[in-house]
Amino acid sequence: MSRIIDTDPATHYPVTERNRVKRLHERARYDRAAVHAILDAAMLCHVAYAIDGQPYCTPTLFWRAGDRLYWHGSSASRMLRHLKAGTPACLTVSHLDGLVLARSGFNHSANYRAAMCFGTARIVDDVQEKAEALSAVIDRFYPGRDALLRPITAQEAKATTVIGMAIEEASAKVRAKGVGDDAADFALPIWAGVIPVKTVLGDVEPCPRVPAGVEPPPELDLYAPGRTLDAALADAQRAYEQA
Amino acid sequence: MSRIIDTDPATHYPVTERNRVKRLHERARYDRAAVHAILDAAMLCHVAYAIDGQPYCTPTLFWRAGDRLYWHGSSASRMLRHLKAGTPACLTVSHLDGLVLARSGFNHSANYRAAMCFGTARIVDDVQEKAEALSAVIDRFYPGRDALLRPITAQEAKATTVIGMAIEEASAKVRAKGVGDDAADFALPIWAGVIPVKTVLGDVEPCPRVPAGVEPPPELDLYAPGRTLDAALADAQRAYEQA
Repeated sequence: MSRIIDTDPATHYPVTERNRVKRLHERARYDRAAVHAILDAAMLCHVAYAIDGQPYCTPTLFWRAGDRLYWHGSSASRMLRHLKAGTPACLTVSHLDGLVLARSGFNHSANYRAAMCFGTARIVDDVQEKAEALSAVIDRFYPGRDALLRPITAQEAKATTVIGMAIEEASAKVRAKGVGDDAADFALPIWAGVIPVKTVLGDVEPCPRVPAGVEPPPELDLYAPGRTLDAALADAQRAYEQA
Repeated sequence: MSRIIDTDPATHYPVTERNRVKRLHERARYDRAAVHAILDAAMLCHVAYAIDGQPYCTPTLFWRAGDRLYWHGSSASRMLRHLKAGTPACLTVSHLDGLVLARSGFNHSANYRAAMCFGTARIVDDVQEKAEALSAVIDRFYPGRDALLRPITAQEAKATTVIGMAIEEASAKVRAKGVGDDAADFALPIWAGVIPVKTVLGDVEPCPRVPAGVEPPPELDLYAPGRTLDAALADAQRAYEQA
């Protein structure tokens, strides 16, 4: 698609009719740093794709390597069978950060961070790329863990399909502020404010079958109880990239 | 679409090729109670729809009234302009409840609750239905609040487009358990366990412009600090339905 906003390809994704943010465009960002920060703080995304004109919105775990996004699933799944030939897709990550209660219904809102990524999703057929992806899906979340695990069997690898999508275009959209009421409404005797929302980690629940003496591994330090999930995931991505 | 699993229409959504869960179908539910419980515990959804073959996955606030789902936005937005004629859509809600670390990469997983709803999304043109929807988007989250607000202006109503979609088919999928390792792997000296994840409410941040003496309203009791967002939202939906 043709670019409609001039951006530096070194730092920004191209902006076309497909990814240009139309509504509240002052909240939009197109630089890789902004988009990646939102992606790297998440484990769960939603992927939109269409089969015979019917859109599907599928939640799935995903991970990022540079400008490529990956997700995986059973070779039997509807989505994956459809993606063999490559299909246009949109992968979106959203974080809800707060509920915004205003003095009018119109100004009620939410604080959030969202990134939409566009590209062509394809099954990863290359043996080397698939093996690296199946290692990355562990190490990206739990740096160093893959080497500690019981190795994947040929049957398991066959039963797992990996999907890859180069990010062709992307946009980020963020609202992170207080109540955006009309000045004329400030004097009204109506309570307004923000209720922050955060996603936090709880106390680890070890599998009862873990043999005595096997302690939680160091990669779990990132996931200490009380930490926010997005901070843990962002740290894990950084540790993974530096390994 | 033709039904492929026989379900009771009084309590269950129809099951067709479109919504049948193919992967890990033992986790699937098609009853209204299961689907609604997942929807009602959320404020944020993702909607998939296609424009000229390009899928979009758009995060948006949504709400439920019976078997109808609603969301809204600026009349200028890409999605809403496209929906005037009605378009097939898929609205999905997901809750991430835990990270599951297994003894093999293959058995790593996540605990989650997800609902996918299929239907035809259309702009709500009916004046009465639109007015009720714009009231519901406040009262569904903050029961009783709409009557306390500065009323919506004609200009604001015009600038807001409401989308409605009857749920034609839906599925729910839930994983809520411990590590699902192969028995043969239990004896390995590898740590395995579940890290619970929950989304919680923080301390309310009142708008600094609220006049002295205006206290937080009773509908905020549902959103007490430390509560989980999904419990607050589910309670709000129940209170709204009983009002």
